[in-house]
Amino acid sequence: MFETAETGIRISKEFYKNEVPKIREELLEIQKKLALSNNSAIVIIGGVEGAGKSEVVNQLLEWLDARGIETFAFDSPTDEERERPYMWRFFRKIPAKGRMAIMLGSWYTELIVNKTFKRIKKKDFEKRIDEIVSYERMLTKEGVIIIKFWLHIKKDLLLKRMKKIESDPLQSFRINKMEWKYVKKFDKFRKVSELVLGETNQECSSFNIVEAYDYKYRNLEVAKNVVSSIREGIKSFEKREKPPLKARSFKPPENNIFKTLDYTKKIDDKDYEDKLIKLQAELHKSVKRMAEKKKSLIVVFEGPDAAGKGGAIRRIIKPLDAKDYRVISISAPTDEEKARPYLWRFWRELPKRGNVTIYDRSWYGRVLVEKIEGFCSDDEWKRSYSEINQFEKELNDFEITIIKFYLSITQEEQLKRFKERQTTPYKQYKITEEDWRNRGKWNSYEACAIEMFEKTSTPYAPWIVVPANDKNFARIEVLKNIIKKLK
Amino acid sequence: MFETAETGIRISKEFYKNEVPKIREELLEIQKKLALSNNSAIVIIGGVEGAGKSEVVNQLLEWLDARGIETFAFDSPTDEERERPYMWRFFRKIPAKGRMAIMLGSWYTELIVNKTFKRIKKKDFEKRIDEIVSYERMLTKEGVIIIKFWLHIKKDLLLKRMKKIESDPLQSFRINKMEWKYVKKFDKFRKVSELVLGETNQECSSFNIVEAYDYKYRNLEVAKNVVSSIREGIKSFEKREKPPLKARSFKPPENNIFKTLDYTKKIDDKDYEDKLIKLQAELHKSVKRMAEKKKSLIVVFEGPDAAGKGGAIRRIIKPLDAKDYRVISISAPTDEEKARPYLWRFWRELPKRGNVTIYDRSWYGRVLVEKIEGFCSDDEWKRSYSEINQFEKELNDFEITIIKFYLSITQEEQLKRFKERQTTPYKQYKITEEDWRNRGKWNSYEACAIEMFEKTSTPYAPWIVVPANDKNFARIEVLKNIIKKLK
Repeated sequence: MFETAETGIRISKEFYKNEVPKIREELLEIQKKLALSNNSAIVIIGGVEGAGKSEVVNQLLEWLDARGIETFAFDSPTDEERERPYMWRFFRKIPAKGRMAIMLGSWYTELIVNKTFKRIKKKDFEKRIDEIVSYERMLTKEGVIIIKFWLHIKKDLLLKRMKKIESDPLQSFRINKMEWKYVKKFDKFRKVSELVLGETNQECSSFNIVEAYDYKYRNLEVAKNVVSSIREGIKSFEKREKPPLKARSFKPPENNIFKTLDYTKKIDDKDYEDKLIKLQAELHKSVKRMAEKKKSLIVVFEGPDAAGKGGAIRRIIKPLDAKDYRVISISAPTDEEKARPYLWRFWRELPKRGNVTIYDRSWYGRVLVEKIEGFCSDDEWKRSYSEINQFEKELNDFEITIIKFYLSITQEEQLKRFKERQTTPYKQYKITEEDWRNRGKWNSYEACAIEMFEKTSTPYAPWIVVPANDKNFARIEVLKNIIKKLK
Repeated sequence: MFETAETGIRISKEFYKNEVPKIREELLEIQKKLALSNNSAIVIIGGVEGAGKSEVVNQLLEWLDARGIETFAFDSPTDEERERPYMWRFFRKIPAKGRMAIMLGSWYTELIVNKTFKRIKKKDFEKRIDEIVSYERMLTKEGVIIIKFWLHIKKDLLLKRMKKIESDPLQSFRINKMEWKYVKKFDKFRKVSELVLGETNQECSSFNIVEAYDYKYRNLEVAKNVVSSIREGIKSFEKREKPPLKARSFKPPENNIFKTLDYTKKIDDKDYEDKLIKLQAELHKSVKRMAEKKKSLIVVFEGPDAAGKGGAIRRIIKPLDAKDYRVISISAPTDEEKARPYLWRFWRELPKRGNVTIYDRSWYGRVLVEKIEGFCSDDEWKRSYSEINQFEKELNDFEITIIKFYLSITQEEQLKRFKERQTTPYKQYKITEEDWRNRGKWNSYEACAIEMFEKTSTPYAPWIVVPANDKNFARIEVLKNIIKKLK
């Protein structure tokens, strides 16, 4: 793979001097185009130590308009980063539409270093590779143009280059001890890199291998590739399917889970109070035990308006320490969120280890309200099942327990509750015209929920559908299930 | 101060049951009003351990619409937080307009605990108090309603309450070891709290001391205060002076700094290249030394369009390791930023220890472009001098070196550069209609810059005004000054 970048190619100073103004113009032009597009770009600079990765970053910043770019250098993770899944630290830096991020170090760095120094198990290595492949595919589909560079130099030329730089008193600072250390591992590092680059190559985001012996050749190659990749990225994204922006309607199958639910299940008030207080005390203990082990819990609530999500959540948090939980209510995204891939807003808020996070509505909005209202394209909601499964899998691998409740009520019960809300002063805020409109789409919501259960009920993150016509029954069910799952 | 909250007051269950629906209604109503206002609210729950702070948070979340609230519990700081000034962890959680944050623990917690256990020097203690007072004043002026509660119980009643709860197997989890530990320090803690509360009391944000022996009385008192504080906060904020939203004009004084600058200073190209490469090598070393000591550097650039800010920045970053610096270009704020106090967007991006951050334009926008264009009220730009000074002081106290450059060119030179930009292809992107418009406000910009130098040139963050008609001279001056300051 690297042979093509071991030729020792050099270009003349004259040629370089001629080319630079041209490529700068092209860079600025494409950057302007990016600024007006629905895309963002991530430029990853990887490669052997001593190849001048940092110089390339500086050069790009010099040639481009620095005002549209952020640069990030990923050193060892901070503790906030270690408290969250591997990809979190990178995801939180995804640039907004129209902007660029240049990353020195990326999701590849730790992986390659660990593999080189034999600090990662084969199984985990392969899992990470799979993850990277599908995340890059997802990001690309969501409009993030990923441009990956691998700077390579043949070993003997690398040594020659480093020695030359080191002998110049005004340049010697560019070479440090760490780089000499890596040179010793050159062959192993080369082999591992070849493996990783090969396994993660895909049409949407393959590595550009750039021979970095001659800084002039290296700089021009990188710049040219940035231009062409952004141009192609924008063009292919323009061809994507757009959201219809009008409602779609769906029909639930004749026989479905909602028809099998027993809505008559009831718990009377006296019995409920007894059970509630006992379950709450138990929940408190379970959560404390969980937190001590540094494990986490995510509880997701979905269901029609007035199904009792808020009430159930209040019964969960009552016995908890305020510092152990957070309730996150999902409503319209902010513009910073709209300017990024769909799941970004959920990644952004991921709890640290040892916490309980309760979602009142969630990332499932994409396959419920957004699908029905036509806010996303067919392609978007169709691929989001697997994207969501992968997201939940990564959480689960990080020792986060995920429980997803769907509180289900009948249409008659919803009507009754709507009317009740309108007459109880402190409940009026809960009922809006929107709620009445949504009632009209009852069948579509049921159909979408059924498909959602089918496609996203996984062993690590199952859906629990609770008949919730009786609030007491539903709340007790929710508490029981959480406690059971925590055991 | 606490005597009024040591009465042992209790209210009947009957009374409570009657009051709760009323206060819930009021809470929801005021929350709706807040949602439509230009204000946000921070509710701080402080007080003695064992008084039920966590229960109060849960109760508020239960009574309010959880969808407009976020809760934060401030435990020991994470390393990302420790890498930044004290207030950073709190500032980054400031809610957006229309929303509420409930904080369990706040900027007071660590201060009171450290004072109680004698872990803070008198001088630092007093400094922190001053800081808190002025930050709270600033936040209030910017529309953040700060509602502070101090839950208090007389010592013997506290012991009685804790023992009672502990003896109930279904409630005992509410009391933990930490709370018993604090009870032992009760008297000292009481004294320190009294001192801190007294010294930070001000009209805009005084502590509400709530007797917490009876949970019913406590909950109602807190809820009532939340309602009235938000109501008053919104009302008094409505009376504030609004931005005129049309341009203001200012006249510079007859004799001023710009007239004393020597714009004829020049460095020829040959001499420049020699000096540049030497200074860059030196800068690299200085920054490495600084980073090793975990100190940081902030370099701010202001000055008219085409003064050469970008060019000077590129000369600074050239010799730096890409992982040691960031360039932040300030343009229009995002909506998440617009929904928060002015300085929030700068707090948000504060670099961690050991880094160089270069600002291409900065927080000084408020006293330059915003002041001139009428984007802020007179009150806002007038008070921002001292707010900015305090901000920079806090950075400086955190071992961040701050250097502020104002690159100054003459009107003729600007015109020459504008014309040149229009004819050089890769420079065209730099010139917009806006730039031509701004030229018409030359005098106003000079007048505002002069006032800015006068009011924000401090010993810890001085302005350096550089005559920049000759780019070579300006760049060398910038590099020299940074190196000098780092020594």
